[in-house]
Amino acid sequence: MSRPASAYDLTKLPTRAPHSINKEQANRQLKRMRQELIELQDRLYAENRQSVLVVLQGMDASGKDGLIRRVFSGINPQGVQVHSFKEPTAEELAHDFLWRVHQQTPRRGMIQVFNRSHYEDVLITRVAGLISTEEAKRRFTAINAFEKLLQQAGTTVLKFYLHVSEKEQRERLEERVTDTSKQWKYEAGDEKKAQQWPQYRDVYEDVFQHCSPASCPWHIIPADQNWYKAYAVAEVLRDTMVKMNPQYPQYKADRPE
Amino acid sequence: MSRPASAYDLTKLPTRAPHSINKEQANRQLKRMRQELIELQDRLYAENRQSVLVVLQGMDASGKDGLIRRVFSGINPQGVQVHSFKEPTAEELAHDFLWRVHQQTPRRGMIQVFNRSHYEDVLITRVAGLISTEEAKRRFTAINAFEKLLQQAGTTVLKFYLHVSEKEQRERLEERVTDTSKQWKYEAGDEKKAQQWPQYRDVYEDVFQHCSPASCPWHIIPADQNWYKAYAVAEVLRDTMVKMNPQYPQYKADRPE
Repeated sequence: MSRPASAYDLTKLPTRAPHSINKEQANRQLKRMRQELIELQDRLYAENRQSVLVVLQGMDASGKDGLIRRVFSGINPQGVQVHSFKEPTAEELAHDFLWRVHQQTPRRGMIQVFNRSHYEDVLITRVAGLISTEEAKRRFTAINAFEKLLQQAGTTVLKFYLHVSEKEQRERLEERVTDTSKQWKYEAGDEKKAQQWPQYRDVYEDVFQHCSPASCPWHIIPADQNWYKAYAVAEVLRDTMVKMNPQYPQYKADRPE
Repeated sequence: MSRPASAYDLTKLPTRAPHSINKEQANRQLKRMRQELIELQDRLYAENRQSVLVVLQGMDASGKDGLIRRVFSGINPQGVQVHSFKEPTAEELAHDFLWRVHQQTPRRGMIQVFNRSHYEDVLITRVAGLISTEEAKRRFTAINAFEKLLQQAGTTVLKFYLHVSEKEQRERLEERVTDTSKQWKYEAGDEKKAQQWPQYRDVYEDVFQHCSPASCPWHIIPADQNWYKAYAVAEVLRDTMVKMNPQYPQYKADRPE
């Protein structure tokens, strides 16, 4: 079946690292970048003016948890918070879809990581047939306005899609059955998820199409290799924070001249 | 000084009741409408699908507290919540201006009353010179998107401006000094507020200009007489809820045929 052409054709975007870098180099550079991130986070916290929101999305088994561990370990946890969005509670469902998300946005000085996010409300809801295409369009508009609101209040929003291939996803999901160290990750329905790769691809492409203003693009990260994706995400985060250039405030206590 | 023509010229909009109604009639009808509201609220709560957000704005001494008492007394407090927005805390100021507001939006089945609201962030902040005209414009856009989000999730947003004349406001503020039963309302700066009527008028007119989409207009209520404003607000609320037409859900327990 042919699909409409798109700038975000996931079947054409790489899921593996470019040849210009190998695992050893990437790990060495990741280590160095983590040191830089430690200092940048310290300055961000002290400055208390700007904040960072890292939105992490990816299909099941794309390795979101491992990525958070690899990139953020070592950074002062006082300045970094991770929030995992699970299935909404009854109370959350009794409000608009951004209600619970807005409560978790970072205050000034903080780095907030969303492990899954408001985008689930235009992804899994569509694959499950819970919302119409029209409702998805309305939500795209609401999401763009929401992210703009955050940006105007000093929050830099970084959105990452961890891009795993259909084959890699299937293998990882199977490992959850065969590898005893990974069986704890197994969830009912994992087999079905592997078959839904094309449906998820379609709704993700629609998200990238509608929710990528110039000021807030998606970063599509090749994610079949864990070492590469951590390196790639850390690099975007480090470069972004260097540009934000947070400063330690000047000492300005009142004291006699 | 001449001002640009506007559909919302507050100096031309009435602050007193129309001649078609007197105090006695209004009070009698208010009593009847309150009975209707009690039933409508009960159905809204039972239906658990829609909600109502009443946004109350008005200059100091326009009588917001008294209005809430007059309109909502008698309605089941389990289904009505009032939230008064005070000066933002340090934690609230560390987020975007809608962060604290979003947390207070009504869940399904509820009537939520905002005693002051997100509009203070484009009113007092402008009179005090805390934000630029450009920032105010950005906030208008954010507010419109926010209210649309709520509407799309089933919340009917009703916005009331209690319109008192400059003269009436000054008299009420003076009573806070001379009338012992009203002295508790006195706040430092009340004298200054009375002088700021024209500045507040200007920023309010700007709000009405920019934040009145057809689906979410402002209701400008003549408010020099307490009996009239309660009647007028109750009427809009009653008519709106009649249109929302909440229904008691059908009994649908599982039981043998």
